[in-house]
Amino acid sequence: MPDALDYVRQEVAIANRILANEGIIDAFGHISMRHPTNPNRYFISRHRAAELVEPDDVLECDLDSKPVQPTSLRLYSEMVIHGEVFKARPDVNSVCHHHAPSVLPFCATGVELVPLFHLGGTLGMKVPFWDSRDEFGDTSLLVRTPEEGASMARALGPHVMVLLRRHGATLVGKSVRECVFRSIYTTRNAELQLRAMAIGTPQPLSPGETEKSGGHNLGSRGVERAWEYWTIRLMKAEAMWAAAGLPRMKGLAEAARPAAAGLPSAKPGVSRQRTSAKPKARKRR
Amino acid sequence: MPDALDYVRQEVAIANRILANEGIIDAFGHISMRHPTNPNRYFISRHRAAELVEPDDVLECDLDSKPVQPTSLRLYSEMVIHGEVFKARPDVNSVCHHHAPSVLPFCATGVELVPLFHLGGTLGMKVPFWDSRDEFGDTSLLVRTPEEGASMARALGPHVMVLLRRHGATLVGKSVRECVFRSIYTTRNAELQLRAMAIGTPQPLSPGETEKSGGHNLGSRGVERAWEYWTIRLMKAEAMWAAAGLPRMKGLAEAARPAAAGLPSAKPGVSRQRTSAKPKARKRR
Amino acid sequence: MPDALDYVRQEVAIANRILANEGIIDAFGHISMRHPTNPNRYFISRHRAAELVEPDDVLECDLDSKPVQPTSLRLYSEMVIHGEVFKARPDVNSVCHHHAPSVLPFCATGVELVPLFHLGGTLGMKVPFWDSRDEFGDTSLLVRTPEEGASMARALGPHVMVLLRRHGATLVGKSVRECVFRSIYTTRNAELQLRAMAIGTPQPLSPGETEKSGGHNLGSRGVERAWEYWTIRLMKAEAMWAAAGLPRMKGLAEAARPAAAGLPSAKPGVSRQRTSAKPKARKRR
Amino acid sequence: MPDALDYVRQEVAIANRILANEGIIDAFGHISMRHPTNPNRYFISRHRAAELVEPDDVLECDLDSKPVQPTSLRLYSEMVIHGEVFKARPDVNSVCHHHAPSVLPFCATGVELVPLFHLGGTLGMKVPFWDSRDEFGDTSLLVRTPEEGASMARALGPHVMVLLRRHGATLVGKSVRECVFRSIYTTRNAELQLRAMAIGTPQPLSPGETEKSGGHNLGSRGVERAWEYWTIRLMKAEAMWAAAGLPRMKGLAEAARPAAAGLPSAKPGVSRQRTSAKPKARKRR
Repeated sequence: MPDALDYVRQEVAIANRILANEGIIDAFGHISMRHPTNPNRYFISRHRAAELVEPDDVLECDLDSKPVQPTSLRLYSEMVIHGEVFKARPDVNSVCHHHAPSVLPFCATGVELVPLFHLGGTLGMKVPFWDSRDEFGDTSLLVRTPEEGASMARALGPHVMVLLRRHGATLVGKSVRECVFRSIYTTRNAELQLRAMAIGTPQPLSPGETEKSGGHNLGSRGVERAWEYWTIRLMKAEAMWAAAGLPRMKGLAEAARPAAAGLPSAKPGVSRQRTSAKPKARKRR
Repeated sequence: MPDALDYVRQEVAIANRILANEGIIDAFGHISMRHPTNPNRYFISRHRAAELVEPDDVLECDLDSKPVQPTSLRLYSEMVIHGEVFKARPDVNSVCHHHAPSVLPFCATGVELVPLFHLGGTLGMKVPFWDSRDEFGDTSLLVRTPEEGASMARALGPHVMVLLRRHGATLVGKSVRECVFRSIYTTRNAELQLRAMAIGTPQPLSPGETEKSGGHNLGSRGVERAWEYWTIRLMKAEAMWAAAGLPRMKGLAEAARPAAAGLPSAKPGVSRQRTSAKPKARKRR
Repeated sequence: MPDALDYVRQEVAIANRILANEGIIDAFGHISMRHPTNPNRYFISRHRAAELVEPDDVLECDLDSKPVQPTSLRLYSEMVIHGEVFKARPDVNSVCHHHAPSVLPFCATGVELVPLFHLGGTLGMKVPFWDSRDEFGDTSLLVRTPEEGASMARALGPHVMVLLRRHGATLVGKSVRECVFRSIYTTRNAELQLRAMAIGTPQPLSPGETEKSGGHNLGSRGVERAWEYWTIRLMKAEAMWAAAGLPRMKGLAEAARPAAAGLPSAKPGVSRQRTSAKPKARKRR
Repeated sequence: MPDALDYVRQEVAIANRILANEGIIDAFGHISMRHPTNPNRYFISRHRAAELVEPDDVLECDLDSKPVQPTSLRLYSEMVIHGEVFKARPDVNSVCHHHAPSVLPFCATGVELVPLFHLGGTLGMKVPFWDSRDEFGDTSLLVRTPEEGASMARALGPHVMVLLRRHGATLVGKSVRECVFRSIYTTRNAELQLRAMAIGTPQPLSPGETEKSGGHNLGSRGVERAWEYWTIRLMKAEAMWAAAGLPRMKGLAEAARPAAAGLPSAKPGVSRQRTSAKPKARKRR
């Protein structure tokens, strides 16, 4: 069924680049998709910035977050976020993890994120917190072990979004497109909450309004309209590649290394900075 | 009189794309225009993001918001906003509905929006609120029934802008260009009010200043100067399409579906995500 | 001396477009230059948005703000801002008037703008306020009469910047480039002050620091370095015109009217919206 | 060893342009690199805006910040920032000095910058302040003498970042890429702190979390992933040059002067504004 999986890789690649183009993900963060016919597998990019992900970068993994095909490619260190949520939540077909600037202040302060406008209804009734300190003490804050991933998934529980203290957010969706939609509009809601709290007391949606507006906005009409919009915005942002007579992004990304970054790995002694006469760099504090 | 209506469709399409290009409308929101010679009709785009609207997308409707020509195209779910305001306000020839980020904090808190600089005079003496809860209880917050539309129009009353609690804004104008001008500069005024409230007590324009500055700025000189500016900015933003050798936007939008979004509808069982072995997705909260 | 004045028109056009490209001026606002050899004349664009100004748009005026050559072109309604400052301040060779978003909160609240970093030293020791209400009562807030212009110039006094309550800012420079530099970095200082006041008590530069840093930054080294930077950024922003195979901006601006704005003036009865069967539009409040 | 130094000049040029493209540096600010084999030398651009730096602009200097090859080119007035830090910190191979908008509020108020998310761990345990007033009284705030540079380096001490009161920030790295990474993510952390303080009490990373997250993020995996991302974003931003059929940036920068800035130095009496009949411009306050 190669055509079907080509579509899956394409969908994951576009979703990553949309989230980059709309300001949700920068160099770090990722979105995955469960296999359309085998619920024990999911697709995610190899280790690279979302803005650069091409279909060929997308790998198939099992729910322990191991690639199905052996690979020498680097993988994200936080893949367990995806695998453990897919294990815990059979209703979920897509997982996004990001550190959008307007969501981080809630992670830093513990202030609750609440729905403040109809499109914010997509964050659901409650956005729980997860704090890695509670079970794991001092860590790098990244979610790197299956135990950490499972703990975060428990904090997510039956909800659609969880805030990771001092770190970022994890969101889920019934489809990649729903997950993208939720990632973008919960971030807009966070931005709204930041600004509303600065001038007064924001009054959140009622439970009934949250359910109805969330349900309406996540209907296929709304999601498809927004997806068309984000896709075309992405095409515009990428059109300059063609205009400049450059090869496709993937080719360019590879080509960029020697040309722009210039690290000639074949030149020992120059390929990394050395100050050999000096004491070794102190361990970072 | 086909030429005249070509112009109308062009005007509505450009107005939508200007509002997108200036950051007032994202995937959701729209602007309409009353028929230039038949006051019982108006023009509005079919269901799609404002940034993508082309003249061919623009449909003619009656004031009950029914298309004059039968169509299988999807329509906006909030068309009654336009139809009911056109019914209630014969002096109005254009209606805009949006959820601009700097206006939403006022919708979330109930803080009054007041004119703080000469171009903010375009918001008039008072910007009333409308709360869907008052008459309709828990809804999706969208304005979808004629009754909801008429209720919102009553809240607008003789004013030029109404804020919809937990939702967005509706504005009117004597022409499409005036409505665009008002939509942009009332949003700039909202931004100013947010920032001014953070450092002190903003002192609003007096009633006399509001009337005089609003009137001056909405004279044809100011509106035409700004329209020229926004139109050329839009042309710049769209110039990359031509530079990249791509077809016109409309063609591209259609073409984008299979190429970029890739949903091969002819492939049953793959065209939507299925996880058939699992319980059906829980109803969204 | 045609070559010299060609240069002047070019300098004024580029300055306008730089200020637009750097976010200081939108559809409204302008910068002028005193005649290099006749101090009783100055140069300013005809009535159009700064982003669109071409050398051919730049007119020569006397200090009463009357064009030296009779013209049928529309002129800015606030030209007296320039003429009256040039009269009052023989040391000034360039005047800028703008409504940058980070300066407006100070105009709305009356909070004093103070220098908070070395580049903010360009705002000088004190930024006075001018309130049109004091002498003229309720106006449109625009500075349209010689008396209003002269009053504003008196408020400016020996300073380099004056804030117009509920309106915007007027700044001066010994040259166009100094005036552009000051307009940009005082706006950055205003932005800094807004953000600093949100987290603590900003401590301004001492008088000695203000004088020394202002003097250093406005030396030709700093101004020329920044001018090169802003000019090339402008060229980048305009490069897409060429890329898209479009004519130069001026030609485009003219061409844009029928193509993009589409108002076919030759079609009476359609060229403006009419709703002839309805009561005339109410006078705007 | 010409190839190796070509690489160094390329690395410094790209680093400058990345920092400009990501919004850390505008017309002012710079990043340097220690010579890869001679620790008593470093590389830095001649006097120009970071966005415009090409490899040919990069000069080799000794640690007293004197160019190794005599040159008539203008140099940055704050080169001692680099030379004095390289003297004091043999573990450091790259120094960045900038005035990013989100860092300046801390410089203006003296509020401490603390790590609030995993990527903010790159700012280390403590970010000290340096105040030029303490030793030097009223200055232009710039760091221009060896004594000022050495004083700032002492304030930096064993840390990785120091905030200069009323001025900006200086940061260090073991490599250019680490220094770029730290410059960008400490700025994002500053932005987060500004926003978090507006809604509640931000809780910083623990010392253990700071060490672990900082160490993890500055490993080669993270730095190289981000570097690839920033490099390709830069290539996108610069692609329009090629699209527009323009020469390479360097050539353009030179070409820009007469064409865009238009100062015909060969025309005495017009090449600078003169108002000879008037009193000399007052000394700037």
